[in-house]
Amino acid sequence: MVETRRRQIEDVASSLFRDQGYAGTSVRDIARGLAIQGASLYAHVASKEDVLWAIVRRAADRFERAADEAERATSGRPADERLEALVRGHVGVLTDDVGQASVFVREWRSLSSERRARIGERRDAYENRWRRLIAEGSQAGAFVPADPPLAAAYLLTALNGIATWYRPGGPLSARAIAAEFVNLSHRALAQERHP
Amino acid sequence: MVETRRRQIEDVASSLFRDQGYAGTSVRDIARGLAIQGASLYAHVASKEDVLWAIVRRAADRFERAADEAERATSGRPADERLEALVRGHVGVLTDDVGQASVFVREWRSLSSERRARIGERRDAYENRWRRLIAEGSQAGAFVPADPPLAAAYLLTALNGIATWYRPGGPLSARAIAAEFVNLSHRALAQERHP
Repeated sequence: MVETRRRQIEDVASSLFRDQGYAGTSVRDIARGLAIQGASLYAHVASKEDVLWAIVRRAADRFERAADEAERATSGRPADERLEALVRGHVGVLTDDVGQASVFVREWRSLSSERRARIGERRDAYENRWRRLIAEGSQAGAFVPADPPLAAAYLLTALNGIATWYRPGGPLSARAIAAEFVNLSHRALAQERHP
Repeated sequence: MVETRRRQIEDVASSLFRDQGYAGTSVRDIARGLAIQGASLYAHVASKEDVLWAIVRRAADRFERAADEAERATSGRPADERLEALVRGHVGVLTDDVGQASVFVREWRSLSSERRARIGERRDAYENRWRRLIAEGSQAGAFVPADPPLAAAYLLTALNGIATWYRPGGPLSARAIAAEFVNLSHRALAQERHP
């Protein structure tokens, strides 16, 4: 029950932060979105930043879990297949709950410094998984020789763009977006296979 | 002289908007960055939004000019060469004045609605140039069949990421970034040429 209320708060806040930015949203706006008094909201959360912190942590958990699953499912497979699985997992996290994901992508820097540092470390660790795979694939000849940090930044930024424009129920399905973005990312790196 | 002062104001403001966000920057912060009184700043600009507006327009001009030049230089050439020139021009605008470009990329939505609409139209027109080229290249067989809106969004978002992490004088030169990003973008779309 308490958990349900917290999720409602996070969902309403995600949507507001996405539309008007974290700085442009007040606790009162969030309370109004839930049709409760600001004072009642404080029974559930200590501050606006606490809500942001909860949203960002939950999104970070989802990205990490998706990468874990992608790595498990493609362990021992060629680098290009592992990359496809990582891309597909990342896009899935973005489209499954784009409000939450977009707050993660765009507003994590709005956290206070200690929390920002903790999320920054998790983001670095996540990006490092992509860099490592790109480095391995380049060495193994599965990928064209690429600069792993630059190529990882290129791919992750391109994918994260989904958070800014994707609307569930819009003209483009999550499946169509995933298919196109997996394809573009795969082609950007993978060696053409000559049968 | 007046023009010089305005450019100084825009440069200081770009750097502050980039580091602490438009919402998190006050006119007083900008004045302090110029070592003048807030009141003196108002002799040059009417409001904080006017400074943002000037920065965003100037950046939009630069992106459009770079695309004009790229199109002129590669007119009649194959689509993949025209794409390379567009990418190189776009990356050049980002790295030549990354403070200004990053404010354009990240803060144009902070403009009031009429100005936001005008910049939105220019952004759409710019993105349409990319979509048209991708559509032409797909039809001509120079590119793999791609969804032009999705592929244009993918490329432009990946490139715009430079605005968030590039630091002049940092470990990666503008030239190295451009080379890698041209390469990744070219490969993402172009058909392999079989000699």
